[in-house]
Amino acid sequence: MPEFAGRMAQMAKSAAIIRNLFGAMNDPGIISFGGGAPAKEALPVELVREIVNDVMTREKRGIESLQYGPVPGLADLREVVVEHLLTPKGVSANPDEVVITTGGLEGMNLLCQLYIEPGDVILVESPTFVQSVEIFEMFQARCVSVAMDDDGMVTDDLEAKILKYRPKMVYVIPTFQNPTGRTLSLERRKKIAQLGSEHDVIILEDDPYRDIRYSGTDLPPIKSFDETGHTVLANSFSKIFSPGSRLGYVLAKPEITAKIIDAKSATNSHTSMLPQVVCAEFFKRGHYPEHHRAMCELYRHRRDVMIECIDKFFPEGTKRTFPDGGLFTWAEIPGGINTTDLLVEATSNPDVKVAYVAGEGFFIEGNGMGSDCMRISFGGVTEDNIRLGTERLGKLIGSKL
Amino acid sequence: MPEFAGRMAQMAKSAAIIRNLFGAMNDPGIISFGGGAPAKEALPVELVREIVNDVMTREKRGIESLQYGPVPGLADLREVVVEHLLTPKGVSANPDEVVITTGGLEGMNLLCQLYIEPGDVILVESPTFVQSVEIFEMFQARCVSVAMDDDGMVTDDLEAKILKYRPKMVYVIPTFQNPTGRTLSLERRKKIAQLGSEHDVIILEDDPYRDIRYSGTDLPPIKSFDETGHTVLANSFSKIFSPGSRLGYVLAKPEITAKIIDAKSATNSHTSMLPQVVCAEFFKRGHYPEHHRAMCELYRHRRDVMIECIDKFFPEGTKRTFPDGGLFTWAEIPGGINTTDLLVEATSNPDVKVAYVAGEGFFIEGNGMGSDCMRISFGGVTEDNIRLGTERLGKLIGSKL
Repeated sequence: MPEFAGRMAQMAKSAAIIRNLFGAMNDPGIISFGGGAPAKEALPVELVREIVNDVMTREKRGIESLQYGPVPGLADLREVVVEHLLTPKGVSANPDEVVITTGGLEGMNLLCQLYIEPGDVILVESPTFVQSVEIFEMFQARCVSVAMDDDGMVTDDLEAKILKYRPKMVYVIPTFQNPTGRTLSLERRKKIAQLGSEHDVIILEDDPYRDIRYSGTDLPPIKSFDETGHTVLANSFSKIFSPGSRLGYVLAKPEITAKIIDAKSATNSHTSMLPQVVCAEFFKRGHYPEHHRAMCELYRHRRDVMIECIDKFFPEGTKRTFPDGGLFTWAEIPGGINTTDLLVEATSNPDVKVAYVAGEGFFIEGNGMGSDCMRISFGGVTEDNIRLGTERLGKLIGSKL
Repeated sequence: MPEFAGRMAQMAKSAAIIRNLFGAMNDPGIISFGGGAPAKEALPVELVREIVNDVMTREKRGIESLQYGPVPGLADLREVVVEHLLTPKGVSANPDEVVITTGGLEGMNLLCQLYIEPGDVILVESPTFVQSVEIFEMFQARCVSVAMDDDGMVTDDLEAKILKYRPKMVYVIPTFQNPTGRTLSLERRKKIAQLGSEHDVIILEDDPYRDIRYSGTDLPPIKSFDETGHTVLANSFSKIFSPGSRLGYVLAKPEITAKIIDAKSATNSHTSMLPQVVCAEFFKRGHYPEHHRAMCELYRHRRDVMIECIDKFFPEGTKRTFPDGGLFTWAEIPGGINTTDLLVEATSNPDVKVAYVAGEGFFIEGNGMGSDCMRISFGGVTEDNIRLGTERLGKLIGSKL
């Protein structure tokens, strides 16, 4: 058989990590703090039924939902993005600058098509979202990590690494970051936009958790501080509407948007129309505010229970983040316990049966960093299971000390 | 601003062709033989309403339609592909060898991710589908054309060019080819599968029109003659269910499928779930046979009217294909008239107001080949408009002779 292209080998490691990370999460006998999926209670099943039922009886909308659509996305949905998701956050934009993507991740893929040549450097947070790394490696980028602290990406380290590595792109998840749940401070948001402009680097802002904030103060996106067009905002409807719909969007300046549209055309022509129509109607009919309120209340409660239980059941010396939003927290456990090894026991021991995501896979360094860390999702777990799962997991960790 | 990657320049020409080809097709005052979209009467609007209305009241299905799904696609839809679309065509396959894609074109994108390094040669038909060329050029492949005749790709020329160019891939649309409507003969199907195996070349079989056959004898896919796994079948639900749903599939041997799944994960995680659920239910509930019958009857009638009208209204010396299926025919007009120039007049002259797709854009040679040709779609045009449009267009052509 013909040889695979070089990119397939380069992405093999992160692809394997993803298969391992998210593969075994679906065993119904396991309490899973693993996957980052929204709660099933947060999926607007009945509203989708109602909307489809209505739009398919309206000739124009019904046909539009099933016929070929425009490459940049449904005009109504691009308007929704501007009116409901950008303007309220202080980002002024025109619907023409927005391209609808098949999920937020496709935005990363398209931006790589636009900019990345093999060997180009992309700076990423340490730790960072492994599925984006998989994309960057498919494009044969060289990922280099930038330090994080409780205020997100450390901008002094970022500037030093921009000067040292001359990257094409900086990838940052500013709000309730995946996997740490940390949020980039206001000052650093300004600074990162400015560094992109000053050093002629694309800042790829991936902000899917931003709208699930249930405590603390809302912060404007990095994009709102961008004066030169170097910041590109890639976002997703997965956490606020439905992940299975695979809807996301990219906001960029017109010269970039035009190229994104070319790359999108050569990826899959356009994003599926039925989900676009349903999502646009969901916002236009005014369902979002109440849906959003209920969703945040649910997640706030689960976060509170999770934090309380970690503090109660995990051994002394455990460090954890306190996320003001999003779906997970990040814990560092004491005693140098390897969380990758521990996961095998946690999922297979009949007295435990708890899953989480081991921390190591989120670090591109590959030198054992994060081997005592775990990402712990609470978004999709009931209160009872949060209590039961943390108690069992805490006991297992304790038994190793 | 940072420079765009080299691939963006390489794809710029075909991207511009696509924007021009399909851009101005939506003027409601124009009779358009341009776009290749299915007839609106062939879109199962009411069935989709009925199915969504039902599945969203079933808890498991409702949540599944909106939640994250498996990278290779919904298990039910992969089964549908095998049972309803492969087995009846003589292709034996296992659902595990099928990956669901976001439309048929995404299959081409993913296969390029797997195999194409910059400079690799892809052999294509002359003429061929320009949107696939756009994808190949985004991957910086060098496209080389292979001659066609009424029986499709000429296999002697193919073999000579395999030996000369040592391509990574051969791209072929075997049935009711886009843009010519021609069908590859049985003998050549066997021969192409065999050439792939013998010369260690991937045969990328793109067969979206196959199931819209309304005359002549059904032919097995190239894939059915593949003994080594060198043929990869990429197909689409666009013409048999709904193009806006962006559903397609790739069938390949397991070692290739595993890599397609990695590339799919790094493209957009998975294809939108709601369309997958609806399409699977559409087949599983037994709606396809009647839908298919009605659709073929509609298109057969329109084909017959179109052929009759071209023969009646176009000037003597016009050559045209007689497609046994699909949505368009291909005409070569006499007198050396340039169809690209003619299109400007055909769409703007108030006495004509007819659109088609000029032939030149489908030829990668770029040396004026096809400048007297046009692709004429009838699938989405009413009988009255076919008569009116061909009469006006025939008169315009006649006036140039």
